[in-house]
Amino acid sequence: MSFSLAESVLQGNRLALARLLTHVENGTPEGLEALNQLFPFTGKAHLIGVTGAPGTGKSSLVNQLVYALRHPEEGQKPSQVAVVAVDPSSPFSGGAILGDRVRMRDLAGDAGVFIRSTASRGALGGLAASTANLVQVFDAAGFEMIFIETVGAGQAEVEIARLAHTVIVVEAPGLGDEIQAIKAGILEIADIIVLNKADRPLADNAERALRMMLEMAVNREKSPSEDGKLIQGWTPLLLRTIATEGKGVREVCQAIQEHRCYLQSSGEWERREQVRLQAELENRLQAALMKRLKEAIPAETYRNILNEMVLRRLSPYQALEILLDGVKQ
Amino acid sequence: MSFSLAESVLQGNRLALARLLTHVENGTPEGLEALNQLFPFTGKAHLIGVTGAPGTGKSSLVNQLVYALRHPEEGQKPSQVAVVAVDPSSPFSGGAILGDRVRMRDLAGDAGVFIRSTASRGALGGLAASTANLVQVFDAAGFEMIFIETVGAGQAEVEIARLAHTVIVVEAPGLGDEIQAIKAGILEIADIIVLNKADRPLADNAERALRMMLEMAVNREKSPSEDGKLIQGWTPLLLRTIATEGKGVREVCQAIQEHRCYLQSSGEWERREQVRLQAELENRLQAALMKRLKEAIPAETYRNILNEMVLRRLSPYQALEILLDGVKQ
Repeated sequence: MSFSLAESVLQGNRLALARLLTHVENGTPEGLEALNQLFPFTGKAHLIGVTGAPGTGKSSLVNQLVYALRHPEEGQKPSQVAVVAVDPSSPFSGGAILGDRVRMRDLAGDAGVFIRSTASRGALGGLAASTANLVQVFDAAGFEMIFIETVGAGQAEVEIARLAHTVIVVEAPGLGDEIQAIKAGILEIADIIVLNKADRPLADNAERALRMMLEMAVNREKSPSEDGKLIQGWTPLLLRTIATEGKGVREVCQAIQEHRCYLQSSGEWERREQVRLQAELENRLQAALMKRLKEAIPAETYRNILNEMVLRRLSPYQALEILLDGVKQ
Repeated sequence: MSFSLAESVLQGNRLALARLLTHVENGTPEGLEALNQLFPFTGKAHLIGVTGAPGTGKSSLVNQLVYALRHPEEGQKPSQVAVVAVDPSSPFSGGAILGDRVRMRDLAGDAGVFIRSTASRGALGGLAASTANLVQVFDAAGFEMIFIETVGAGQAEVEIARLAHTVIVVEAPGLGDEIQAIKAGILEIADIIVLNKADRPLADNAERALRMMLEMAVNREKSPSEDGKLIQGWTPLLLRTIATEGKGVREVCQAIQEHRCYLQSSGEWERREQVRLQAELENRLQAALMKRLKEAIPAETYRNILNEMVLRRLSPYQALEILLDGVKQ
């Protein structure tokens, strides 16, 4: 008796899982078919996005979180945990810089953990879609918590973080003013803020600055809703860690559980699922529409139009109109 | 006698320029019309992308470069310089964090300089397209050098850097291992690498590491071409600066000029123009196709399909096929 790749993954076959992840990353027909088969089994995992500027120690923190979740306090069940480490900084090499091999030595041989690095291939929308695919496979395979870890803190990372139910933003003391500026934007998507490297000088200053920014953000949101009642939302938690020493890591695990309880009791879980799936659908639509356009317009026509642009005889908008007319029919 | 906005801009009217930039950023019909009118006058400016991780001192460096270009050595003509400072880190606030006001006090009142901050609005493709529009306006308005400065070093920034003829990647010593990893990807697009904050400890180490990475990259490219001849390309220059003190800044200006000469003598200028305009066209196509799709599919149909996805009755791929069938006709 033989099983399809999707069936083997559902049965917990780890080798099949690894093979399917590669199929899915490469966009093979087998991968696509398996994704369709697996989709009905998704929607159970808690997706946790981890983002933050380079140098904040995101990877160490995620490693420690996974270790803590695999070794909970007595009486608690360890969760099955997957990590998708996304590296959008290397669109050219095609290879993942964060080697799976060098990470998580303490977790080697633990069948309840699976770590996968993925590098950017092609367009940004493509990266988000490809990450969503990998996450779906892990979800269907029964992983209860899936960390989506990104390398940087740019918009690409923010888009990826949107795939998650819970967003953790990692900060560190003393990264300079420019980082400070970035916080203002990224804090708006944070459910949990972790001030890592909390043993560094200036950690207290950094915490104070973060608390101030948080208070401003919270006050802004606490305006009365249309029917006059105050909206009771989630106030982002601020926690300090020294990930390299494992300090404060259990508290972050607790915060993740708290946020999950909040999401499920408030109806926010369903809302985020909807936003998440809508974003996913739009990413895929965009890619598919471009592909269709390229197929509909002869390469020579496309080249000629481009050439007219280079010669400044057609503006980009005029070129656009011609091309769109060509596929309207 | 009255002039159109585009005509006033071509005549050097700075107030009209400021107004048009706002129109273009907001995508108004006036802005669109002016862009079409101005496009034949573009293609003369030297576009210089400046990217690098947060904390490397990009803004200070750009400020100093602009100052140096406005105050050249005796016998040289000062260039008209524009700066478009792109901030993709704040997709939520809508406002630019890098205030134009706090920047470039030394340049206040200099009519040969124009600085414009722009924040991310909507999708990533949108940001690149919007930046391209602002650059076109400056180009037509007669600015000879246009710096496109980004806040971060993620893929969004890389896409924006692709708008440029010359790409400067700014580095700084001691930013941690994760930054080191990012370099590997970003170095591949660099024409000029600036090691800023070169008075910091570990600057020599950082320079050595950068030189090694550069040598590896150059050796990889020096493979014989198809007809057996070695391709003679541009070897990225590595320069040290202390931007806050203005040290090394003139040398960077010289490197920019050298790269321009290389581009123009090698035919690479035209090639980059073509790549640039093609990327621009594709960004716009993608946005326009999505808009058209949204108009073609009733909002209720879209909502129903999304709901079927949330209920796991349709996979994202199946949803995609239904939506695409709907616009095929």
